[in-house]
Amino acid sequence: MFPEAGVLAPAVTAVFTAVLTEGPISRVALARRLGLSSGAVTKAARPLIEMGYLEELAATERTGPGAGRPASPLAIRADRELFVGVKITGDELIGVVCDLRAQVRTSAHRRLPVPDPDQVLTQLGELVDDLLDSHADYRPRTRRLGLAVSGDVDRTTGLVRYSPFLRWRDVPLRERAEKITGLTVTVENDVKALTTAEHWFGEGVGAESFALVTVGAGIGCGLVVGGRLVSGSHGVAGEIGHVGCDPNGPACHCGSRGCVEAIAGTGAIVRQAREATGRPELTLADAVALARAGDPPARAVFARAGDAIGSGIAAVANLVGPARIVVSGEGLSAYDLFEPHIRAGFQRQAFGAAADCPLSIRPLPFEEWARGAATVSIKALVDA
Amino acid sequence: MFPEAGVLAPAVTAVFTAVLTEGPISRVALARRLGLSSGAVTKAARPLIEMGYLEELAATERTGPGAGRPASPLAIRADRELFVGVKITGDELIGVVCDLRAQVRTSAHRRLPVPDPDQVLTQLGELVDDLLDSHADYRPRTRRLGLAVSGDVDRTTGLVRYSPFLRWRDVPLRERAEKITGLTVTVENDVKALTTAEHWFGEGVGAESFALVTVGAGIGCGLVVGGRLVSGSHGVAGEIGHVGCDPNGPACHCGSRGCVEAIAGTGAIVRQAREATGRPELTLADAVALARAGDPPARAVFARAGDAIGSGIAAVANLVGPARIVVSGEGLSAYDLFEPHIRAGFQRQAFGAAADCPLSIRPLPFEEWARGAATVSIKALVDA
Ligand SMILES: [Zn+2]
Ligand SMILES: [Zn+2]
Repeated sequence: MFPEAGVLAPAVTAVFTAVLTEGPISRVALARRLGLSSGAVTKAARPLIEMGYLEELAATERTGPGAGRPASPLAIRADRELFVGVKITGDELIGVVCDLRAQVRTSAHRRLPVPDPDQVLTQLGELVDDLLDSHADYRPRTRRLGLAVSGDVDRTTGLVRYSPFLRWRDVPLRERAEKITGLTVTVENDVKALTTAEHWFGEGVGAESFALVTVGAGIGCGLVVGGRLVSGSHGVAGEIGHVGCDPNGPACHCGSRGCVEAIAGTGAIVRQAREATGRPELTLADAVALARAGDPPARAVFARAGDAIGSGIAAVANLVGPARIVVSGEGLSAYDLFEPHIRAGFQRQAFGAAADCPLSIRPLPFEEWARGAATVSIKALVDA
Repeated sequence: MFPEAGVLAPAVTAVFTAVLTEGPISRVALARRLGLSSGAVTKAARPLIEMGYLEELAATERTGPGAGRPASPLAIRADRELFVGVKITGDELIGVVCDLRAQVRTSAHRRLPVPDPDQVLTQLGELVDDLLDSHADYRPRTRRLGLAVSGDVDRTTGLVRYSPFLRWRDVPLRERAEKITGLTVTVENDVKALTTAEHWFGEGVGAESFALVTVGAGIGCGLVVGGRLVSGSHGVAGEIGHVGCDPNGPACHCGSRGCVEAIAGTGAIVRQAREATGRPELTLADAVALARAGDPPARAVFARAGDAIGSGIAAVANLVGPARIVVSGEGLSAYDLFEPHIRAGFQRQAFGAAADCPLSIRPLPFEEWARGAATVSIKALVDA
């Protein structure tokens, strides 16, 4: 990222990340926070200020015991560089332009008739063009694009190994997207992308450990431990959807039965609601409407699903003990039906003080997944 | 630990830890491994050599392309200092004397009629004296004692907050043990102690992430992620015993039902075997003998227990993705009855590539828990 910084690189990255996610912050506080000397902080901040990524705010008078020179906190210049983020789902592309602090400047989306890679890439090129053309400032300030895809993604190579909802196998997404857009592209698993966004700019800021659980077609989980995203030594981590919670539960696409996802994923809920009501044409919207109208069998399906999610979240709390857990995802548009049962399942199954872990349960704002994708490209800038 | 080292302390600790757990190792390899300059490695090693903790082995001729000066690998002088480790269980004390590489020099144990804190401390003082008196070398070389206790332990204060098997609450174990033994004492949860021993000196050496699962009266788990033991933001981590795996399973002492421990802990196995055979006086040994003789109901109890353990281990692999998992503990004296079912449950419930995580399933050698306790005191030296 900063060739000028030479051997200082690790300190420069550390200072940049800390000011980005926790700033404005004084040099003294930065030095304490990062375990660096204040000389090292000043040295590391210099190239960042020269390149326009950081600025010194006006000095604030310090008072009280130990007050010495007035402190000039360092802050991010959020509009120094812009980033495009796009979430690719099975039936639509959702795109945003964000600044350095992942604040959304504009958003757009496109329906996808079929998730064929060629079509998706053509549409992606058009969507990125639309986004960058929507304001004269955007294109000149944008160098990077982040893409978020569900499934098994290799971030280092930008290869989508397997995405069940897109039905993709071994698609070299980064390479193809760079060719079409001319931007530097980073590809990441969608749940990991969203977790990074929450960790850097949301409820996870400053947390040593943190978990994000997403509820929708799949049930996913991103985990931060020791300040770093857990990626799993064998390429698998955060698969809360396949924690087994009932050996007599419904069959799961993974080959087991009674997994959290086999009880609480969107498809599972529709299937169980059809069985429970004897109405084979029922949609998810119908099931939600029925349950909200008080239909006992439909309500029981959401209750069981919420309970399974809560039990899976308790497994995360019992095993890893995150400082806090955010539960979100498009499935939580049925928040009212899920929320009490998620909490009940969690409280029953969380062991001892693990039950003290705060749960934030909330629906997911529209562009959040795309903002997560943009965050991945901000992270790529910082790590570069 | 090393006041002479002054500002170099972090590099000194890093060099000491790397040589201790991965040595003998050359300065060049150390520098690469730790991301330090070779000058920094040489500087950090100097006080360690002077104090007798490290030594330079004879230079080995290097051959092949790039061969330059002969390399003199750094090695630990394992007998530079000795450590006592004691595991405190509900009915016995098990003690060892170890060297710096946690190799057991001698061991001893004492029955405990009742686990009353006063009696335990008296017996502990006598056991430590016996161990240190067993060889003229031991006492002069020993400054530190590690204690391992099951339950909720605060390592920083040395307070045993709650130990269900000992029926202890708020026992200031470190303070009292230091008074009785005159040694510097470190107290740790027994599963965490054993995990550190495996991570530093066993199958976990060099692993970025690693899990140890213990099977016995309780089902526990120690987790290493990013090279560090996970301790949980709310004081709970590794509680695999209370991962819920069957909502219709037996009631658990935690208040839930169908937890791994409620199906597979020693007490649960005895209870279920009594029910299955209709013999209320059955002991664990009886249940093992019956199952080994082919009795179907007794075999089914172990099969279900092994399956629950495997499913819990799969939750660890799915969520955290450790490089490898060791399954051990006194329960695995019935290895033959458990092992195939642990593997089957794991394979069924591990998601995708999580099933690639190697499982080592093995009985626990007699002094292993005490060796874990000694490792905690070695770690305390390194961290001091
Ligand atoms: Zn599954
Ligand atoms: Zn339990």
